Amino acid sequence: MLLQVPRGTKDILPQEITTWQEFEVKSRQVFCLYNYFEIRTPIFENIALFKRSLGDSTDIVQKQMFVIKQGKDKFVLRPEGTASIARAYLENNLGFGTKLRKLFYIGPMFRAERPQKGRLRQFHHIGAEAIGLSSHNLDIELIEISDYLLQTLGISKYKFIINSLGCHNDKLKFGILLKKTLLKHKKNLCGECKLRLSRNVFRVLDCKNEECRKITNALKFDHSYLCDDCKTHFDKVLEGVNKFNIDYEVREQLVRGLDYYSGVVFEIIHPELGAQDALGAGGRYDHLFKELSNKEIGAAGFAFGMERLMLVSPMKSSPKQLSGYIITLGREATDRGLDMLREIRRAGISCDFNYSDSSLKSKLKEANKLGARFVILIGEDEINKKRVTIRYMEESKQEEIEFEGVVNFLKEAIN
Amino acid sequence: MLLQVPRGTKDILPQEITTWQEFEVKSRQVFCLYNYFEIRTPIFENIALFKRSLGDSTDIVQKQMFVIKQGKDKFVLRPEGTASIARAYLENNLGFGTKLRKLFYIGPMFRAERPQKGRLRQFHHIGAEAIGLSSHNLDIELIEISDYLLQTLGISKYKFIINSLGCHNDKLKFGILLKKTLLKHKKNLCGECKLRLSRNVFRVLDCKNEECRKITNALKFDHSYLCDDCKTHFDKVLEGVNKFNIDYEVREQLVRGLDYYSGVVFEIIHPELGAQDALGAGGRYDHLFKELSNKEIGAAGFAFGMERLMLVSPMKSSPKQLSGYIITLGREATDRGLDMLREIRRAGISCDFNYSDSSLKSKLKEANKLGARFVILIGEDEINKKRVTIRYMEESKQEEIEFEGVVNFLKEAIN
Repeated sequence: MLLQVPRGTKDILPQEITTWQEFEVKSRQVFCLYNYFEIRTPIFENIALFKRSLGDSTDIVQKQMFVIKQGKDKFVLRPEGTASIARAYLENNLGFGTKLRKLFYIGPMFRAERPQKGRLRQFHHIGAEAIGLSSHNLDIELIEISDYLLQTLGISKYKFIINSLGCHNDKLKFGILLKKTLLKHKKNLCGECKLRLSRNVFRVLDCKNEECRKITNALKFDHSYLCDDCKTHFDKVLEGVNKFNIDYEVREQLVRGLDYYSGVVFEIIHPELGAQDALGAGGRYDHLFKELSNKEIGAAGFAFGMERLMLVSPMKSSPKQLSGYIITLGREATDRGLDMLREIRRAGISCDFNYSDSSLKSKLKEANKLGARFVILIGEDEINKKRVTIRYMEESKQEEIEFEGVVNFLKEAIN
Repeated sequence: MLLQVPRGTKDILPQEITTWQEFEVKSRQVFCLYNYFEIRTPIFENIALFKRSLGDSTDIVQKQMFVIKQGKDKFVLRPEGTASIARAYLENNLGFGTKLRKLFYIGPMFRAERPQKGRLRQFHHIGAEAIGLSSHNLDIELIEISDYLLQTLGISKYKFIINSLGCHNDKLKFGILLKKTLLKHKKNLCGECKLRLSRNVFRVLDCKNEECRKITNALKFDHSYLCDDCKTHFDKVLEGVNKFNIDYEVREQLVRGLDYYSGVVFEIIHPELGAQDALGAGGRYDHLFKELSNKEIGAAGFAFGMERLMLVSPMKSSPKQLSGYIITLGREATDRGLDMLREIRRAGISCDFNYSDSSLKSKLKEANKLGARFVILIGEDEINKKRVTIRYMEESKQEEIEFEGVVNFLKEAIN
């Protein structure tokens, strides 16, 4: 156990890191085009924040929190990004002097779930939040960035599932309607859902039980719970999404597993993901700020699971090739080689050195394993001639070059 | 409390994020030149790993761990990077097929200390590890990268403090010698140090108590505990450091507050940091792998505190300027403007849109606050003429351009 990564977590190793780096760089570029700014909140927060924002009866708060007790304090490893960002927005007064704050984040999240395919206990989110306005055009912008981000990451075949829960009042109405309808099916619901009926009826729609899903999938309300404003808002969002040729479907069963959502919500699903088919999800959460601070602040956002994006993206990046690798034989050659190593690196060219005492053959093998493009050989002969032997590792040819010419040779060769 | 960041942690806000991003990008570039590969380990590990590697009697393990109890498991938020990377190296067999593995990491670390200037409970490390060999040239390389990294981040006036604890056997001898000497001063040591004498005598050298420091600062052993090999190794390292013109001082009191160190250790201090004057530190830890896996694997590394680097670096980066900002008046103009917005962004030009219902004056103020270079105005007049008005925000002039020419105009203007 001492030497094992904790269950449900993973090391991201050198052979896969370039893909992670590239996903992050590309995401930052996309967010920059849309004028979203990165924010980083701490890895843990006070437990009260998540209870209040995600909802006491959600699965996350009930069963999936990693809790740290520290003196009188109880902290929780953040299970998602939105609650922390709402907290940071309020605490740091980020709304000051601007009507709209657009933020994004990239980082680890934590849920103590049973690990399975596509579900880790430490996973990573790329997400965005637009805080300050309730305009339907922001809902559209968020759906459009999601779409563009997926395209940028080389992903296709995904589909948006969209719904509207309506404003806080509508959502209450929706809840009553849902409960009334589900009560007729009570005897066929699972034990937990029977409890959910009174505790938090929306959570029945998240239930994975097959019998429960059969019941909920058949529900139809035609959005009768939406007030006029919310109906118009929803229609306008769909109109915008239509205009941008985004593949979507309206599904009344989509409520998202967190209490803070109201208004338009969406999920992005991908056929290759299997049972856990959501690549990401988002929506409007105008009521969250009321809950946290009693202020009326419109807001919407989304988040993608990075591990899931990687499962369906064809983008696999390789590390940048190592340009030079110096092999020396003998004390004097080593001294000269180490100076040259420093010179090459400080000229902005990647270079490594064979630090081990081993045979030339094994040193060349190491250079090959590292994928070096050029090996720079310095032995006794080379020291006498003040020249190095440069071996082209791909072309298996070699040539001699003066000590002083090595940096320039590499500069030209790699450009 | 609900709306406060946990004590000793910080939000990294949009106005400071660019500096963080730049530090990370530059560090990655430096590591790439030296052929170090990024690795990311989980945020938490099994508690046993840290007890075994950092040492049961270190302050970190005794007092500063954030513990998560999860069923029968006890996890700890990682207080530093080396132990996790050693675990990852062994678990993933990263030594396979190569004599030397060079790794780096950037990420948050956690210690439940009393927060004070330069000490946070969540802080961030940039660090490197070279695993597989015991060559003194690797000690030199690590000191040299540290030096180059600091220069790259614009930092000057720092100084290296270097010492050698010798191999595992030497370190035992050093401990006995230290204990013998300190016993003579026992009555003047603080209460905790009296206990440390028998528990782990090296920790007396970390004590912040003034009386204890006075005693330990006066100690002199002339490295008499070093065996011949370790003496030679140390001399060679100092020779290399001399050659590279790195400012340093040998200090026999430097042992580093973690048990895994042996051989050459170093710390980088900066005069502007005050009482917590270390920017970073590192050293050799050949014995760690023996402790964890009973294998003989040479290794050395270092880590810098990112927050401390930022305190002394003159590098303050501003966000990239927003290129365009679209303001529309009226329904038709808004529809046209939203299409244009998408077009501009997909052409790789950053652009935002005024989503709020407010006066033209207040919309222009928002554009100004966002630092937009060009405002693209579309009103009724513009719709009729099929032209937009482009306002140069810095030069306070404006001109009219056809709808179709906007993307090209921006492309040229920002290049």
